Amino acid sequence: MQEIVVDGVQLHNFARGLCEKAGLSSDDAELMAKLQVQTDLRGVHSHGTRALPGYLNLVLDGKLNPKPELRIVTEGPGYAVIDGDNGMGHLASTLAMETAIEKAKTTGVAAAGVHNAGHFGAAACYALMAAENQMIGFSTTNTGRPSVAAPGSAEAVVGNNAFSYALPTGHGHPIVLDMACGVSSWGKIGTFRMYGKPIPDGWLLDGTGKPSTDPNQGSLLAPAAGPRGYGLALIMGILAGPLSGGMMTINKTITTSEHFFIAMNIECFTDYDMFISEVDHGIQAIHNAKTAEGVEQVYLPGEIEWNNYNKWIESGIPIHIDHLRSLANIAEKLDINIFWEW
Amino acid sequence: MQEIVVDGVQLHNFARGLCEKAGLSSDDAELMAKLQVQTDLRGVHSHGTRALPGYLNLVLDGKLNPKPELRIVTEGPGYAVIDGDNGMGHLASTLAMETAIEKAKTTGVAAAGVHNAGHFGAAACYALMAAENQMIGFSTTNTGRPSVAAPGSAEAVVGNNAFSYALPTGHGHPIVLDMACGVSSWGKIGTFRMYGKPIPDGWLLDGTGKPSTDPNQGSLLAPAAGPRGYGLALIMGILAGPLSGGMMTINKTITTSEHFFIAMNIECFTDYDMFISEVDHGIQAIHNAKTAEGVEQVYLPGEIEWNNYNKWIESGIPIHIDHLRSLANIAEKLDINIFWEW
Repeated sequence: MQEIVVDGVQLHNFARGLCEKAGLSSDDAELMAKLQVQTDLRGVHSHGTRALPGYLNLVLDGKLNPKPELRIVTEGPGYAVIDGDNGMGHLASTLAMETAIEKAKTTGVAAAGVHNAGHFGAAACYALMAAENQMIGFSTTNTGRPSVAAPGSAEAVVGNNAFSYALPTGHGHPIVLDMACGVSSWGKIGTFRMYGKPIPDGWLLDGTGKPSTDPNQGSLLAPAAGPRGYGLALIMGILAGPLSGGMMTINKTITTSEHFFIAMNIECFTDYDMFISEVDHGIQAIHNAKTAEGVEQVYLPGEIEWNNYNKWIESGIPIHIDHLRSLANIAEKLDINIFWEW
Repeated sequence: MQEIVVDGVQLHNFARGLCEKAGLSSDDAELMAKLQVQTDLRGVHSHGTRALPGYLNLVLDGKLNPKPELRIVTEGPGYAVIDGDNGMGHLASTLAMETAIEKAKTTGVAAAGVHNAGHFGAAACYALMAAENQMIGFSTTNTGRPSVAAPGSAEAVVGNNAFSYALPTGHGHPIVLDMACGVSSWGKIGTFRMYGKPIPDGWLLDGTGKPSTDPNQGSLLAPAAGPRGYGLALIMGILAGPLSGGMMTINKTITTSEHFFIAMNIECFTDYDMFISEVDHGIQAIHNAKTAEGVEQVYLPGEIEWNNYNKWIESGIPIHIDHLRSLANIAEKLDINIFWEW
């Protein structure tokens, strides 16, 4: 058996404990636990608590600041830029989206950039904040070094930048698209490896730019849909890069990340109830669409993840034992007890 | 010989003449000619003057209003919604992006939606307006009836919505991404047919949701990169749909289109010169990237199109004779002389 089912609340408390013990403030530890467990609950394990040991080791190694003083570097009616003080990306990103939401109440649309911070987890977390405030949210990130090829390149020229949109609906959870611009996320490739599944054809390129199926080759990801994934990765890396006071991915010599957020206030543009009613009417039609053979139903973006959420918040989250082992290792390092039985 | 080379200025004057004769005001005819010929010059024939006969026939048939009275339905510091009065989408879209640019000068970011209008041509045209004003531009559209499948659906549930980003650079033309969310644009499929080229594998689905290579089947396009293209198409159709006072594509019973635009004012977020210098430094690195065998160089999004532009603005635009025949037909209908020799 490769998975153990753990309780979401216990996992949350455990994650908060780890973050506090590593030096984060109680509020920040609570936020980290909330975002990472929310991500596990949606079944996106690659970006959930599985990422915590990596973050916390950076803190313990003195490479990430556990108690950043977030600072608004510049702001105006519909914009802000925040210096993350080399803390967890989640903290500055949450402040940035909160700021954008607040400003969009008046201006209709607002954006905020973050620089000098760490990885922010799942892009969806921040887009969702807007959707929970009756707005449409957009988030993107420029994390790490280049790892995705352009069409025709034999080296990485853009980051595997993710972006997310979240949109409120009338019934049930928001519509959530959270996608990487490469043909896959590195986290998902890691999860494939963890489960011993083969990496699908066409995902990786070798050092000459030719397709490769060798999972040990691959430091070069193909872009999703060729020029489109490449173009989106480049542009996301400029929004969450030079526009937010950071660097182009291909120029990066530093390990900090940049992030970028937009909130669009629906009720400025149109009557909110009319918007919701029209969207729900469309959702109904999509749910009733004719399916291909063997397919039970057509899902909305993010719906399969919400189905996990609805189930797992009651019955617990199935987590791979390698993921739990890695959590146990960091727990031991921090002298925290694990709560599950092996 | 399938192509005839025509002069861009002559094509512009001819296009303007057609629009005027069909009943558009001189200013509007001039704008239509500018946008459609700019699109031809960038080599995107599917969305350039090739589309004019279709637009003008709608006007002649009384289905599009040649002299719309554009009306700002609602506006605030960073947003506006415009009623296109059932005129050419280009007219309301140009006003919408102009409005967003003007507002973003103060607010930093601004967005504008358009409803009750026609097709707007190439999405890039409007994103480019922002880039020409030292801003980052975004544009999208919700045009026509559903034509793209969701993963697992056997019928179309989303439109083949296009969106575009344009970003200024220091040297040369802006970076421009202009993409459809389906695996291809319908215009491009039309161009493939016109040149007698086969439709690539995996583009079309048959009525049971299975891949089809029969070009006469295909009223159902596959989404680009599966759930990602589907998700993007759905979300673009909500931005340029219910958010802009229009309908979900799948609910549409009317032929009008909706469009949506964002302008992001770079100098609010960061020093403009620093932004440009960092972007240019990145462009240089991308241009110098190692290439796969047989590939001469790595291009920026939109760069191949700008290379067409630079060449063709001097030497003329090669245009397919079927495209010219269709222009000749509408010219005859409007009693306008053609300027090229067969």
